[in-house]
Amino acid sequence: VTDSRPTPYLRLDEERLAANVRRTAERASARGVALRPHAKTHKSIDVARHQLRAGAVGLSVATVGEAEAFAEHGVDDLFVAYPLWVDEARAHRLRALSERAAVAIGVDSVAAAEQATRHLSGSGVEVLVEVDSGQHRSGAAPSEAGTVARASGLTVRGVFTFPGHSYSPDGRAAAARDEAAALAAARESVESAGLEVRVVSGGSTPSLEHADTGVVTELRPGVYVFGDAQQWELDVMPPEQVALTVVATVVSHAGGRAVLDAGSKALGADRAPYATGWGRLLDHPEARIVQLSEHHAVVEMDEVPALGARVAVVPNHCCTTVNLADELVTGAAVWPVVARGRNT
Amino acid sequence: VTDSRPTPYLRLDEERLAANVRRTAERASARGVALRPHAKTHKSIDVARHQLRAGAVGLSVATVGEAEAFAEHGVDDLFVAYPLWVDEARAHRLRALSERAAVAIGVDSVAAAEQATRHLSGSGVEVLVEVDSGQHRSGAAPSEAGTVARASGLTVRGVFTFPGHSYSPDGRAAAARDEAAALAAARESVESAGLEVRVVSGGSTPSLEHADTGVVTELRPGVYVFGDAQQWELDVMPPEQVALTVVATVVSHAGGRAVLDAGSKALGADRAPYATGWGRLLDHPEARIVQLSEHHAVVEMDEVPALGARVAVVPNHCCTTVNLADELVTGAAVWPVVARGRNT
Repeated sequence: VTDSRPTPYLRLDEERLAANVRRTAERASARGVALRPHAKTHKSIDVARHQLRAGAVGLSVATVGEAEAFAEHGVDDLFVAYPLWVDEARAHRLRALSERAAVAIGVDSVAAAEQATRHLSGSGVEVLVEVDSGQHRSGAAPSEAGTVARASGLTVRGVFTFPGHSYSPDGRAAAARDEAAALAAARESVESAGLEVRVVSGGSTPSLEHADTGVVTELRPGVYVFGDAQQWELDVMPPEQVALTVVATVVSHAGGRAVLDAGSKALGADRAPYATGWGRLLDHPEARIVQLSEHHAVVEMDEVPALGARVAVVPNHCCTTVNLADELVTGAAVWPVVARGRNT
Repeated sequence: VTDSRPTPYLRLDEERLAANVRRTAERASARGVALRPHAKTHKSIDVARHQLRAGAVGLSVATVGEAEAFAEHGVDDLFVAYPLWVDEARAHRLRALSERAAVAIGVDSVAAAEQATRHLSGSGVEVLVEVDSGQHRSGAAPSEAGTVARASGLTVRGVFTFPGHSYSPDGRAAAARDEAAALAAARESVESAGLEVRVVSGGSTPSLEHADTGVVTELRPGVYVFGDAQQWELDVMPPEQVALTVVATVVSHAGGRAVLDAGSKALGADRAPYATGWGRLLDHPEARIVQLSEHHAVVEMDEVPALGARVAVVPNHCCTTVNLADELVTGAAVWPVVARGRNT
């Protein structure tokens, strides 16, 4: 990397981004499922436009704040794929949103469905019932989906899950099977309660290729647009597909290692149990970040670059990295991270 | 917590903040050492003003960007406590800075000292030589400090270290001893090279009370202003002194646990080896965050609060938490995080 932009900064390879978007869109289309990419990964309207141009039916977001940011930039179909608790302030924001976009939200309990109904009745906001498929984070039991759906006075669009336990070596296919089983049971539960299910939504980047398209009608991967060290180390995306890196400067050779000026405030502090370090170096596959603090990454590698040299760091988890930055720097332009920090 | 501000948000207890600032300032004064608090923790001019009013001699910062942010708000004595590699762009910014503030930077090698000299000669920017006292991150060997200092054509102010290995149960006193030994050796090395040492700078929040004031002349703690779960669990600051919390809403009772809407994008993903979870709950000392993702914290606790209830989460590491937020909400005001994201 040779430029003079102050480091650390986020560099985006737009060609790789476009290839990642196209490849996933084509596979979804060939398999007959809708793609509703998760925009919490990129928080960028420019990346979203790539996805929508490639055929995405709308965006998934994690928060009302992200939905607002994308609606402000013209996105008109937004699913807050999160078990929201709709208090008065959120209801006010959701009502305003629903005037300029088709809006759906998640609920995972009878109480949450009733609360959403109380505050959003007549707004046009739809709900999907979240079920737990094995990550054991949020979501109702699949067999309870019908009961939750019945408690909703808002139109029920369908059911969804996030198979987050796909983030595990050798766990991807099994997580996709869990996902299909949970969603099939949830669909049956809602239909048994006498309601129609229009959308059965699943998907994570690691489980994507294993998704059972006999069950799911919509997929919500996020990370596939950029790739990151987690996907690299899970063998989901090779380094050649990684589109997003943090450009850092070698500032010290203390201890015979390379010390970079990108720490947890630029890379994020995510480190999954299977990770081999705090991030990888794109052009040095043998290198490992063995120590990370706020403004230092200490790298063990075969040949330490010169002081002042710049390297491209692949963060462990791109979603949290993007949330730290105000801009994505492409070859030709600087894209604002329009939903950075919009986490409420 | 009962208000209607959208969660998650950062709440600051200004009384506790003031007490933390006062207590530390009084101890430093009683022990005859200068306090130069690290502002990377709070990135807030309002917090900085508390510190400066209480007698701080200036601020420590981690980046030129932070220095710029504080200088823009009138702070006139700034030490970039980091081993900078001064390229042309950074030199330009440092020269501009030095026109409105006393500025010092860190260097930890002969090459970095020469590079800084090349670009900053005549600017008035001073240097301190960083030495490694046992964290093994950056910093020259203490015995090399004189050689590095001699390579500087800029005025050498002194030597500094960060005893980061104080972040360890039972490691605090030993880290302070290492700090004193390294700084004493570094001072001797610089003086043997024929240069004056005006400042011997050390300090971290965990090692603060053990600092050897026969050696150090200046301390640079950061976290002491807020406290966090790390300091709580290291027995450095009890929960009664924690001034900064992330207010979160209970959105789900999935699995019989409390699921909060504050995840790694609000709390940060830091988790030290000694941490008992991903953060603590201020009013529920038995509670543990057992699972953390971007927008979910899953909490095991004795009595799960009602859906929609708000709780105060103590993040593991307040410095990375603040970097995620645009505002600190006190009882009476909203303070902007003026240096948020200023990490270059």
